[in-house]
Amino acid sequence: MLDIRPVVHLIGLLGLALGVLMLVPAAVDWQAGNANWHAFARTSFVVCMIGGLAALTTRNGLDAGLGRRQSFLLTASLWAVLPALGAVPFALGAPNANLTNAYFEAMSGMTTTGTTVFVGLDDLPPGVLIWRSMLQWLGGLGIVIVALVFLPVLRVGGMQHFQAEAFDTMGKVLPRVYDISAGLLQVYFGLTFAAIAAYMAFGMSGFDAVNHAMTTIATGGFSTSDQSFVKFTGPLEYVSVLFMVLAGLPFIRFIQLLGGSWAAVWKDVQVRAFLRWIGYSVGAVIAYRLMTSDAHVLDVLRGTLFNVVTLFTGTGYGSDDVAAWGDFPLLVVILVGFIGACTASTGCSLKIFRYLVLFEAIRAQMQRLRRPNEVVALRLGGKRLQPDVISSVIVMFTVFVASFILLAVSLSLTGLELRTAITAAWTAICNVGPVFGQEVGETGAVDGFPVAAKWLMIFGMYLGRLEILAVLVLLLPRFWRG
Amino acid sequence: MLDIRPVVHLIGLLGLALGVLMLVPAAVDWQAGNANWHAFARTSFVVCMIGGLAALTTRNGLDAGLGRRQSFLLTASLWAVLPALGAVPFALGAPNANLTNAYFEAMSGMTTTGTTVFVGLDDLPPGVLIWRSMLQWLGGLGIVIVALVFLPVLRVGGMQHFQAEAFDTMGKVLPRVYDISAGLLQVYFGLTFAAIAAYMAFGMSGFDAVNHAMTTIATGGFSTSDQSFVKFTGPLEYVSVLFMVLAGLPFIRFIQLLGGSWAAVWKDVQVRAFLRWIGYSVGAVIAYRLMTSDAHVLDVLRGTLFNVVTLFTGTGYGSDDVAAWGDFPLLVVILVGFIGACTASTGCSLKIFRYLVLFEAIRAQMQRLRRPNEVVALRLGGKRLQPDVISSVIVMFTVFVASFILLAVSLSLTGLELRTAITAAWTAICNVGPVFGQEVGETGAVDGFPVAAKWLMIFGMYLGRLEILAVLVLLLPRFWRG
Ligand SMILES: [K+]
Ligand SMILES: [K+]
Repeated sequence: MLDIRPVVHLIGLLGLALGVLMLVPAAVDWQAGNANWHAFARTSFVVCMIGGLAALTTRNGLDAGLGRRQSFLLTASLWAVLPALGAVPFALGAPNANLTNAYFEAMSGMTTTGTTVFVGLDDLPPGVLIWRSMLQWLGGLGIVIVALVFLPVLRVGGMQHFQAEAFDTMGKVLPRVYDISAGLLQVYFGLTFAAIAAYMAFGMSGFDAVNHAMTTIATGGFSTSDQSFVKFTGPLEYVSVLFMVLAGLPFIRFIQLLGGSWAAVWKDVQVRAFLRWIGYSVGAVIAYRLMTSDAHVLDVLRGTLFNVVTLFTGTGYGSDDVAAWGDFPLLVVILVGFIGACTASTGCSLKIFRYLVLFEAIRAQMQRLRRPNEVVALRLGGKRLQPDVISSVIVMFTVFVASFILLAVSLSLTGLELRTAITAAWTAICNVGPVFGQEVGETGAVDGFPVAAKWLMIFGMYLGRLEILAVLVLLLPRFWRG
Repeated sequence: MLDIRPVVHLIGLLGLALGVLMLVPAAVDWQAGNANWHAFARTSFVVCMIGGLAALTTRNGLDAGLGRRQSFLLTASLWAVLPALGAVPFALGAPNANLTNAYFEAMSGMTTTGTTVFVGLDDLPPGVLIWRSMLQWLGGLGIVIVALVFLPVLRVGGMQHFQAEAFDTMGKVLPRVYDISAGLLQVYFGLTFAAIAAYMAFGMSGFDAVNHAMTTIATGGFSTSDQSFVKFTGPLEYVSVLFMVLAGLPFIRFIQLLGGSWAAVWKDVQVRAFLRWIGYSVGAVIAYRLMTSDAHVLDVLRGTLFNVVTLFTGTGYGSDDVAAWGDFPLLVVILVGFIGACTASTGCSLKIFRYLVLFEAIRAQMQRLRRPNEVVALRLGGKRLQPDVISSVIVMFTVFVASFILLAVSLSLTGLELRTAITAAWTAICNVGPVFGQEVGETGAVDGFPVAAKWLMIFGMYLGRLEILAVLVLLLPRFWRG
């Protein structure tokens, strides 16, 4: 049997931390003279108690370190349990959501998806808004740690290509977390504060700036307004693009930047491909819109840049109705949503790196078609691609596409119209945010979806954020055997 | 430089054969007292001349056999040149089509796609109808030879897994063609005659039976009526299902059957998976329709069986409006269209075999996630899967999906509505037949599509039928170098 004590211990500790952090929205609501602070304070107390107790009763659990299977179980449990805890204040206080909606919103937060079931955001207590943003910010931080530390050792989806040189045994997973945490926190806080300052400098209120900075750096996309970024069109869109792109870069490079190594960022093949592909997709949509609409050129440039980048990086803000631009722009944004950002960023979806591996595999295959006996070495960023990396990446693609299709079919069975079902599956699996279709509310909220559709989306967001395989492996009966 | 004489020689010979075969529709129209026989007779004369001349001037071309690159060039040229020759009668006589439409129809025929740009089929001269059916029948026969002989040696898309034991050098490609031709022709004619007899026994006229038998065995889907199979609802649908499924089985097994080996058919893992998946998809749609409509149970069973099987096998007849059944059935048929039938059948799309390889790769990967150091052997049908087969299959999937997406995007740029563009790309790349969407005519014909969309579909059908990579390899500059 699998020893689950280390897992319970770590979840307990992180639950405790989440409970403590609930004091932030409590303080905000209290400060605003809003009675809603009770909901956060009470939940905080209970969550701290439960988390603390779980940690205490398993306090020696970590003595043996964290094994391979325990790491899988930890990752999968964290993104199921923490959103449940984070959802409680939504149910107890404003907006007085039912359990499905509260869990949906918290899951959409922690997975940095950004689809919302809340309508009337502008009138919600500030504590609720900041809590939504904090859930995304924490989810983004968490996923970077998972991608930097766990996925490479667990060999999920080709991430073993990024296994750091000095570190390749399971025994060192936890020490490694502590190692990178200092640098990562510096980077993450630094980017967030820079974003707050920039948003404020270009005219956002302090409160809006803090919220949007957190959801930008997490490529999360929650906003403080039903209209998302429509309120902030203009220079703020350029500011946002800058920080969304930064949030989509590999965070390990920022950590190296702290050590003074600029070259690491610019020489990263992922970074180059990411920027190039953004250029292509933005350029294609701009060309299309200039030919098909008579909007002002500068408006087209800015609007296209912002809305394509926000969907490319998987952030999901909106400052315009992309679906109204035409079918071609809609197809483009859906495609780039399937790409996502760089590995170990807060971005989601399949990621640039996997596409580069795939292209390299295709190139080699074409070469072999021509001359079957030629030996072709596959490389990426100057490092040899191991066969295991290639097959992992490819399995990831398959499982990703299959999950998307299954989810779309299941959503259509709940009664959603085809376009709605397909874009809802896309937004969930790729953690993007917006859904396009007739059942989507005027504010972009999906509160009107059937309950079954919401749960399917919850499951999709969860699967997508954890790179699917890290969850599916738990479903193997073999996983649980000794 | 590549010596193209053997390629020209073989194309010349096959063009000559096509010219001779044009005497069949000429005779049919002459017999029917229809002046349209002129179009076929004149074309026949010219095509025979050109084909004969090409063959004569290169008559020593085959002395050195057929090399690897020549085989690629031959396959790719055949499916571009023969449809061009076959299109001439459509342009010269009835239905007096323009060049785009004539080539579209002939390409849709030779690739066994079955999408039509002709309206008023019921009133066309019988020679034109039989010529359309013959193009599909010939295209089906041709593709089985390509799949049995060329693709395995050329190592396209994992087909090397089916390389016959006694035969693995390029030098024996042509002898191999002659070897299997006798058996294959017996099987192909046998199935066709059986289908003619069965269709007539259940009430089709001799002419309808011959046409539909040819397009059934080719999984082509051209009909003699604008209403496709609506005229033949009832027992004929069951007859058709039987022969469509037979046409989707691996023809090599039928050849073995001639030698008395029944076990070969039933033990083939592809065959079992094919039948099982047909069962699942038909069952799912029947369940959905029974719950959502109040049509008579037997009508639901028969209509669903027929329409799902016709799209699964890539035949593409229609006896009912599948899109009107709901979004779920539509999604199911689109998905099964992406599967297709068994290798070396007349069926198209990605094929059962590739999915089985993919599932096997996923299974192995999941096992490695759990225990990274375990050695996992991949097998299919009792035969070890070579790494090269797996990576070829996977590249095929990628290229297939990428082509579909690119084609859908390009089609949407020609102004087609999203659903039309997507299903047109699907029908072209998977060689299925029907297109769903508002721009499709009442009879299912796509004559109203923009010219650019038609050419994109022509290219898509061509790519899809030749397993894409067999064409793309010609685009490598390296291919043409010594
Ligand atoms: K997002
Ligand atoms: K077809």
